[in-house]
Amino acid sequence: MKKLLVIGIGAGNPDYITLQAVKALNSADVFFLMDKGQSKDKLIDLRRDICERYITHKAYRFVEAPSPERERGEVDYRASVEDLNLARQSTFERLIHEQMADDECAGFLVWGDPALYDSTIRILQAILDSGRCEFEFEVIPGITSVQALCARHKVPLNRIGQSIEITTGRRLAAGQVSDADSLVVMLDAQDAYHQVADPQTEIYWGAYLGTPDELLIHGKLEDVAQEIERVRKAARLANGWIMDTYLLRKP
Amino acid sequence: MKKLLVIGIGAGNPDYITLQAVKALNSADVFFLMDKGQSKDKLIDLRRDICERYITHKAYRFVEAPSPERERGEVDYRASVEDLNLARQSTFERLIHEQMADDECAGFLVWGDPALYDSTIRILQAILDSGRCEFEFEVIPGITSVQALCARHKVPLNRIGQSIEITTGRRLAAGQVSDADSLVVMLDAQDAYHQVADPQTEIYWGAYLGTPDELLIHGKLEDVAQEIERVRKAARLANGWIMDTYLLRKP
Repeated sequence: MKKLLVIGIGAGNPDYITLQAVKALNSADVFFLMDKGQSKDKLIDLRRDICERYITHKAYRFVEAPSPERERGEVDYRASVEDLNLARQSTFERLIHEQMADDECAGFLVWGDPALYDSTIRILQAILDSGRCEFEFEVIPGITSVQALCARHKVPLNRIGQSIEITTGRRLAAGQVSDADSLVVMLDAQDAYHQVADPQTEIYWGAYLGTPDELLIHGKLEDVAQEIERVRKAARLANGWIMDTYLLRKP
Repeated sequence: MKKLLVIGIGAGNPDYITLQAVKALNSADVFFLMDKGQSKDKLIDLRRDICERYITHKAYRFVEAPSPERERGEVDYRASVEDLNLARQSTFERLIHEQMADDECAGFLVWGDPALYDSTIRILQAILDSGRCEFEFEVIPGITSVQALCARHKVPLNRIGQSIEITTGRRLAAGQVSDADSLVVMLDAQDAYHQVADPQTEIYWGAYLGTPDELLIHGKLEDVAQEIERVRKAARLANGWIMDTYLLRKP
């Protein structure tokens, strides 16, 4: 039986990797890397670095496949992600059929944790449900950027006994958030923190968390929102890409 | 300067520990263990096991202190936790004053991640704010039971582009939850999943996640709610304690 490992490699800092992930890395024969174009080259490189750094027990190979791109612009977000996942499903099926021997083990290296805003688990379940491929798979959790954010700011994610909402910049911008007093925003391409009504709201912002390029800003929105916009614009320009996350806490 | 490390040791499986945590363990001179009475002995033992397993570079010692207990019964939850944290603050201050030399490093081993439903960060910040102790501290994130739950059930935490709410059994029982389509419930002492109105809601339940005693149940509430209640009652009786977590997903 073919075996697939969906390995969370943590968010940025190579030391965020778990021993379970190190063991998983050392049991894979092949790693499937999805190339998302030039701006993501650095992320591919980091995945290669992690293999080089931690695989000590066996030979392994990489197979790169072009990752289908999501349609941008004036399209329904969910539908565009579902289309993307169908395309990725075909790519995954092809890789599993053509690039693995029957008794081999393949690894997918997922930034952060495979359960949080990543579709690898969803796609593999869809392939199994389709009956077109047989394999077993395992999920290895990893430290998310949310956890890195809290650790680096030394701030608890929740207030005592209170809830936390984790959401996307898209939903915040559309006003589709609850009144949770701790709100974590991911995948924000549009500076949605400007939409928050109360300027006394505290923001804990971080970009490139855990990496040497890490940026952290904390303060009340009225004091730091402009600074964050300026810093993230400059950083995106300088690096060609940005990954950032923030926690909003009601006053 | 005294240094404190708040080390997330992950949820149950010793392999969930990160390399960053292993390095932190190996840099501490002393570990402060809070004893929460007989039912938590197993958790203290697991902390000792983790030190034995992973500390290879230096000598270290344990200091056990009785952990103050939270007042139970008909009291305001938040006030009772705040009282508890004040008592724990005194204990921490005493430990830092009496049990550490000036250049020493002390570790607090926190189950899961120190940012999620744990007060160690909050208490250390309060001590620093009080000005009664000087020290520097660092937070090391760890794999939470929420991540272990998703990994073991092989299920994404969120639906595509949707939000996640993380909350407590207490809040679910009180109806204080949003309409998030993915709701994670922690610290549920009262089988609050029975309060969910729609019996078609899917539940992914797990207890003792990552340990040899791990229990997993998945299904629609109408099919598995009674089974979960029965299983968790029996497990709590057999083990003397239970730690469980679940994800509720709207149909």
